[in-house]
Amino acid sequence: MVIGLGSMGGGIARSMLRAGLKVAGYDVSDELQDAFRAEGGTDLPRPQAATQAAAVVCVVVNAQQTDSVLFGDDGLAAHMQPGSVFVSCATVPPEFARATAARLAQSGIEYLDAPISGGSARAGEGRLTVMASGSAAAFERAAPVLDAMAEKVFRLGDEAGRGSALKVVNQLLAGVHIAAAAEAVTFGMTQGIDPATTLEVISECAGASWMFGNRVPHIVAGDYTAHSAVDIFVKDLDIVLDVAHRARFSAPLTAAALQQFVAASGAGFGREDDAAVAKIYARNAGLKLPGD
Amino acid sequence: MVIGLGSMGGGIARSMLRAGLKVAGYDVSDELQDAFRAEGGTDLPRPQAATQAAAVVCVVVNAQQTDSVLFGDDGLAAHMQPGSVFVSCATVPPEFARATAARLAQSGIEYLDAPISGGSARAGEGRLTVMASGSAAAFERAAPVLDAMAEKVFRLGDEAGRGSALKVVNQLLAGVHIAAAAEAVTFGMTQGIDPATTLEVISECAGASWMFGNRVPHIVAGDYTAHSAVDIFVKDLDIVLDVAHRARFSAPLTAAALQQFVAASGAGFGREDDAAVAKIYARNAGLKLPGD
Repeated sequence: MVIGLGSMGGGIARSMLRAGLKVAGYDVSDELQDAFRAEGGTDLPRPQAATQAAAVVCVVVNAQQTDSVLFGDDGLAAHMQPGSVFVSCATVPPEFARATAARLAQSGIEYLDAPISGGSARAGEGRLTVMASGSAAAFERAAPVLDAMAEKVFRLGDEAGRGSALKVVNQLLAGVHIAAAAEAVTFGMTQGIDPATTLEVISECAGASWMFGNRVPHIVAGDYTAHSAVDIFVKDLDIVLDVAHRARFSAPLTAAALQQFVAASGAGFGREDDAAVAKIYARNAGLKLPGD
Repeated sequence: MVIGLGSMGGGIARSMLRAGLKVAGYDVSDELQDAFRAEGGTDLPRPQAATQAAAVVCVVVNAQQTDSVLFGDDGLAAHMQPGSVFVSCATVPPEFARATAARLAQSGIEYLDAPISGGSARAGEGRLTVMASGSAAAFERAAPVLDAMAEKVFRLGDEAGRGSALKVVNQLLAGVHIAAAAEAVTFGMTQGIDPATTLEVISECAGASWMFGNRVPHIVAGDYTAHSAVDIFVKDLDIVLDVAHRARFSAPLTAAALQQFVAASGAGFGREDDAAVAKIYARNAGLKLPGD
């Protein structure tokens, strides 16, 4: 059973179907849900699917939604069977993962802290990276699902929260690197270097990053079709800073990057690809980006 | 002829010797200069070497030193022959490269704007990346030297300044990525994730960068032997911000990263490896880094 059939969850659900698993998929969008059923998804009322499911994979946006899926109106926790596993893929604070695992344990339900990395293309191919932690029983119950969705599963210990901790570390870097790529490309433009040249040269230099290589082509093409939207990093860097704040950890680069994503969202680019953070730099400096 | 026999210039000079070129090498350190002569460097007074040299490769720290090499007391510009080429490898503002090229042109001396990337190990192997711009004549005269020192030469146009522009773009990213790596690794520690685990997992995730893979092992090993020192990035991010400021370009991530390197230098780590910027984060958050 998969909750959330967006760019990541939809890919995971389809990878599970391809692996021969019986999958019921749910989304707040009827359109996404109907499309998945047309491709072979099981047609069952949600509570009944939860009762039958050996594993529930939850691919929603954040901790609030995850909590609501489990414990909100007609929440799944009341329907899942003891011994089944809840595989939580959203980016959430480690503390939320620990608390939710403890709450489900009271009903005998296993919790796998299993945030994901890799993007929508790899989600569709069943080639995600999963940063997972949880009990041996949680890993065992989740094994068929993990096999279907992931190329690489990091087993980070038997305690919920460790997977989520590494995910927030990853999001810190990913967000900073996207904003830095935008800063660098537009800075280069002020010096007469076009974005395509910056992409070509920096990709072979020490300034390269995974995000630079992945996002700068969007700027070069002037194509801001959202693979991952600006507002996702507004949310994720907010989570990073919230977790950091509670730990009394000062994170000045994360804070600076978040402000650029917030500005991009405020300027109306929240639903565009996160590479659109470059538009803030370009506006401020009076530059014309490709496609502008 | 090579000016500056430090970790980069020494490697370049030796790569030129290995390629069969006649090389005179000079450094403010007699020790470095004598060592190079013992390995086959030509023994000539500096002015005489400049008169004979088809190419002078200048691998000093910044624009001020480059200017002084050319136009200071007994500067080389007065000795170099028309038709010879000055290959400038320091990280300098693009405007300085343009002005120096124009000044040398008055004496018929070619200027190749040729900043380098790749680190000391690759300098020693003759496998640097060169971001070069200049006239066809400058490239032609510099060809034997470039062949000896570089694996990859980007030809970025016939105008001095374009090579330096890409180098400052690269340094922006490199500096931000090192500080971000330090921020991420220490943030992970506040969540109970040790640096070795962060290195292992993030290297396979979207948060990866060239600098993350290169510098985090120094933090994991607790070894801050300087491959490239904290003070180099204090200098280079200063250049980035100065160039940005003149272009009225706002660069908040660069500014935040620079402050972390300045703090590391102020705390006494200026001559340690630039990965020592992690010590600032660790101190602030009360963390014990490996080897501490």
